[in-house]
Amino acid sequence: MANSRFEYVKAFEQTDYLLPNTWVVVRIDGRGFTKLCAKYNFEKPNDRRALDLMNGAAKAVMTELPDITIGYGVSDEYSFVFHKTCTLFERRSSKLVSTVVSTFTSYYVHLWSTYFPDAPLSSPLPSFDGRAVCYPSVQNLRDYMSWRQVDCHINNLYNTTFWSLIQLGGMSNIEAEKFLAGTVSADKNEILFSKFHINYNNEPEILKKGSVVLRDYELVEPQGDNVAAAADDIAEPVKQSKTQDENDKKRRAKARVMVEHLDIIRDDFWDRRPWLLSNKPGKVPKQT
Amino acid sequence: MANSRFEYVKAFEQTDYLLPNTWVVVRIDGRGFTKLCAKYNFEKPNDRRALDLMNGAAKAVMTELPDITIGYGVSDEYSFVFHKTCTLFERRSSKLVSTVVSTFTSYYVHLWSTYFPDAPLSSPLPSFDGRAVCYPSVQNLRDYMSWRQVDCHINNLYNTTFWSLIQLGGMSNIEAEKFLAGTVSADKNEILFSKFHINYNNEPEILKKGSVVLRDYELVEPQGDNVAAAADDIAEPVKQSKTQDENDKKRRAKARVMVEHLDIIRDDFWDRRPWLLSNKPGKVPKQT
Amino acid sequence: MANSRFEYVKAFEQTDYLLPNTWVVVRIDGRGFTKLCAKYNFEKPNDRRALDLMNGAAKAVMTELPDITIGYGVSDEYSFVFHKTCTLFERRSSKLVSTVVSTFTSYYVHLWSTYFPDAPLSSPLPSFDGRAVCYPSVQNLRDYMSWRQVDCHINNLYNTTFWSLIQLGGMSNIEAEKFLAGTVSADKNEILFSKFHINYNNEPEILKKGSVVLRDYELVEPQGDNVAAAADDIAEPVKQSKTQDENDKKRRAKARVMVEHLDIIRDDFWDRRPWLLSNKPGKVPKQT
Amino acid sequence: MANSRFEYVKAFEQTDYLLPNTWVVVRIDGRGFTKLCAKYNFEKPNDRRALDLMNGAAKAVMTELPDITIGYGVSDEYSFVFHKTCTLFERRSSKLVSTVVSTFTSYYVHLWSTYFPDAPLSSPLPSFDGRAVCYPSVQNLRDYMSWRQVDCHINNLYNTTFWSLIQLGGMSNIEAEKFLAGTVSADKNEILFSKFHINYNNEPEILKKGSVVLRDYELVEPQGDNVAAAADDIAEPVKQSKTQDENDKKRRAKARVMVEHLDIIRDDFWDRRPWLLSNKPGKVPKQT
Repeated sequence: MANSRFEYVKAFEQTDYLLPNTWVVVRIDGRGFTKLCAKYNFEKPNDRRALDLMNGAAKAVMTELPDITIGYGVSDEYSFVFHKTCTLFERRSSKLVSTVVSTFTSYYVHLWSTYFPDAPLSSPLPSFDGRAVCYPSVQNLRDYMSWRQVDCHINNLYNTTFWSLIQLGGMSNIEAEKFLAGTVSADKNEILFSKFHINYNNEPEILKKGSVVLRDYELVEPQGDNVAAAADDIAEPVKQSKTQDENDKKRRAKARVMVEHLDIIRDDFWDRRPWLLSNKPGKVPKQT
Repeated sequence: MANSRFEYVKAFEQTDYLLPNTWVVVRIDGRGFTKLCAKYNFEKPNDRRALDLMNGAAKAVMTELPDITIGYGVSDEYSFVFHKTCTLFERRSSKLVSTVVSTFTSYYVHLWSTYFPDAPLSSPLPSFDGRAVCYPSVQNLRDYMSWRQVDCHINNLYNTTFWSLIQLGGMSNIEAEKFLAGTVSADKNEILFSKFHINYNNEPEILKKGSVVLRDYELVEPQGDNVAAAADDIAEPVKQSKTQDENDKKRRAKARVMVEHLDIIRDDFWDRRPWLLSNKPGKVPKQT
Repeated sequence: MANSRFEYVKAFEQTDYLLPNTWVVVRIDGRGFTKLCAKYNFEKPNDRRALDLMNGAAKAVMTELPDITIGYGVSDEYSFVFHKTCTLFERRSSKLVSTVVSTFTSYYVHLWSTYFPDAPLSSPLPSFDGRAVCYPSVQNLRDYMSWRQVDCHINNLYNTTFWSLIQLGGMSNIEAEKFLAGTVSADKNEILFSKFHINYNNEPEILKKGSVVLRDYELVEPQGDNVAAAADDIAEPVKQSKTQDENDKKRRAKARVMVEHLDIIRDDFWDRRPWLLSNKPGKVPKQT
Repeated sequence: MANSRFEYVKAFEQTDYLLPNTWVVVRIDGRGFTKLCAKYNFEKPNDRRALDLMNGAAKAVMTELPDITIGYGVSDEYSFVFHKTCTLFERRSSKLVSTVVSTFTSYYVHLWSTYFPDAPLSSPLPSFDGRAVCYPSVQNLRDYMSWRQVDCHINNLYNTTFWSLIQLGGMSNIEAEKFLAGTVSADKNEILFSKFHINYNNEPEILKKGSVVLRDYELVEPQGDNVAAAADDIAEPVKQSKTQDENDKKRRAKARVMVEHLDIIRDDFWDRRPWLLSNKPGKVPKQT
């Protein structure tokens, strides 16, 4: 029995190849996480277990998809960066997005009980949506990452102050909201310190900076003054042999995927980790 | 601290609204399920627990996303149909695909231990990819569904015969493959019957027909001869009040989502379930 | 000398196939025609020569591109409809749009001197932009055509009244604009009649209805009551032999392309011209 | 009479914004120019009048669209480059392509009689199709331009040899084709020289190099060794005041658009014309 009479429907599938030679960022976001936070009694303003679970899932995504060079997460969102030379799934947007979203979700659900042993999952289960965005230049890519980290900072400073006013200052949600209306960063720092003796600078790095997921290679001493300026050159692919490709693959697989809480806006972060832009694996440190 | 310097990067996100007034099919596929089958010792040619798990996840997807009117699954793939008038997520392709894929994955992992209590999941975890395709007419949509069901039949007849030759006939994989080369359906039916006294018609419906996920409304007696011919008219939206919209929503939510194994190629299936095309919920049967 | 080192750039061209089984409308618009009208002293509110030139170019487009089934023009815009089964240029949007725009422009410039013998063209020359839009159902397509014709009516009634107030009533542009602010159609009809003894119904059809470009086939007597209701069925392609395809092509080529000024909103227009939806050429009338 | 009942059809128009920060190349191609060449007796292998007409139309396009920084033409095709910061028409692909194609066509038809005074145009008229392609980096853009120029060289060497064999050597088309099968560039140079005393290097530059359309600014002495290497930096936009923007616009408008026949593959071409990448107008030379 041939299937030919119906097979014409395949032609309706439209291609969605992403533009070559551009950095692909897949960002995923928790769906309806406000309700989820309430249901499982996430601590306010930040639940450390929830963040660790996000980071655990992100590490698994990067381990299963070696084409991802860096991930950055904050709250219930995570961004994953594919190098501009990446050809995974022929750069089809749906395949890239759905694979990242599905792998992340899979680990999030699977690891849940590790981080929330006393709060078993029940319907509706956590889920995420996602999208892919292309960035042509290293500057655009770094500005995207900076955008997310600045957002992390703005939100965390606000939330820390907001919940201090409620939890330590006895305000209602509405009172706290009104109190903060129109304040700038300096005001919030001042409120935290004068009212609650909290020095925002001493808050945990994971909250102030968010989480970066990286392969663990040895850091590199920045060469010269203008490393950042030459970023697009560093990112240019170098022709190499199949053997070298294989070696790169092995080195990448050997590298430990780790989570850190660093400033990713400054040049220094990128200068010391040239592999992020070059896609050429760094030196795997000796395990001790 | 304003975020404005970096916010320009938002403009790089490109819109992916699907064409209005077209049926949207989101199909998901298991990633690397050949390895997964081997790892968890799925039975050949079909593992009933694995199919039940797929169906369990699909039911949860339809329960969480009431905009889906019908699902159809076979093996490690599932198709979900959104009515042509659906405006969920403004019809953005990435949102629709990623939400379906993530919700499906979430339940698949969560329900795993129910169906495979003795085979705990370990890395790499199961995951799925997905894509969205638009079909302008009811005929195109039904041909898509028929395409999947014919594929189910072709593959299942082949696999049943192939594994009978191996498991019952003692052939090697290569011998069985050679033996079946060039055979048509009738030949395979004959091989099954003459060699193994298997009447393919008596095989379980879930294997021959695949699985349909539907809301449980009372079946309707087809009116006149040409119901199928008027399918596009049935699918035309009818203007109705907000109260009616609300009532529809409640009726839809009250309807049980169920899995059946039916012929979805013939007109009869669609004629008796006009709600599939009209998107107007049917009559919820009295629970007994 | 091989070209291979640079040929990789071809891969950056992204496909833009329009969804199959949808009606494709290519609409073109004059660029900067306000200036053009002033430069060549077009008569207000309508310049008959300019409309005839548009229609002349549109007829040429339909003659050169037999895949177009109907055109509709008003002012400095023209819409061309490709049947939903059309596969010209593999339905690539850029090819369809650019070919229509270029062919139209070519004839517009070439025919200019026929309609404006005393006003030779000079830089900047007239040009047009264009876009393609897909419509899944016959109803959508007809609503698109109706949208343009209602627009024609609204604009022409306004412009006729506006310029009467100026040319016959001695108002300034600003006075006329203020005078008409907030008026509805009935008001404008009344103004025309009471002030200037103009019965809008007696205005030329080309101005009230716009221009339809069609192939000249014999009109058909509408069959039964519900022809319009069955429009999508009529539009379904019928399998036919290559000989029949060839015959259709010849009949289409033999048909005269003509311009008329008709109501294209009512069912009657479409019922009497079933070839517009069926894409099956009608009967070419005997030339007298 | 309100138009609201039909206006919903506007929502079917899908957006086609090109990715920001990428170079946009619009390439147009003559449609059916083989027939056109025959109809108007274009000289073989190259008709100088036809090339001059193409160049005349291209100059007009660049004059009317100051956002175009460079054009390159060969045979019946022309490529126009918009700077990566260009926001003309919000970077909508259809608008960019259709406007370029229409403006080019308009001038091609209008200027025809200047170049072919004895061969008046008749139906079917010349027309062009077009497409837009995005290139993320300067290297990609330059490789695109190089690709077209190498193609020009390959085709012209072949055509020159092919038509010499026919026109001077008395071969038939088929004999010439066979004779050249499998030959490389060196062979063709040798054939031209040994058989017909033609030194290919002495052929006119317009044929060997194609035509570059540029604004006439004073050439710049390349600074340092690695200008080409820093190309992406040069292309980065510099924040400047509105006054400066206005001055740039004026300088650009004042610059003469001219056609040259140069090697655009080598760094030197780009190093001496930094305005091509910087989009910052150069110094307009004093007219003598």
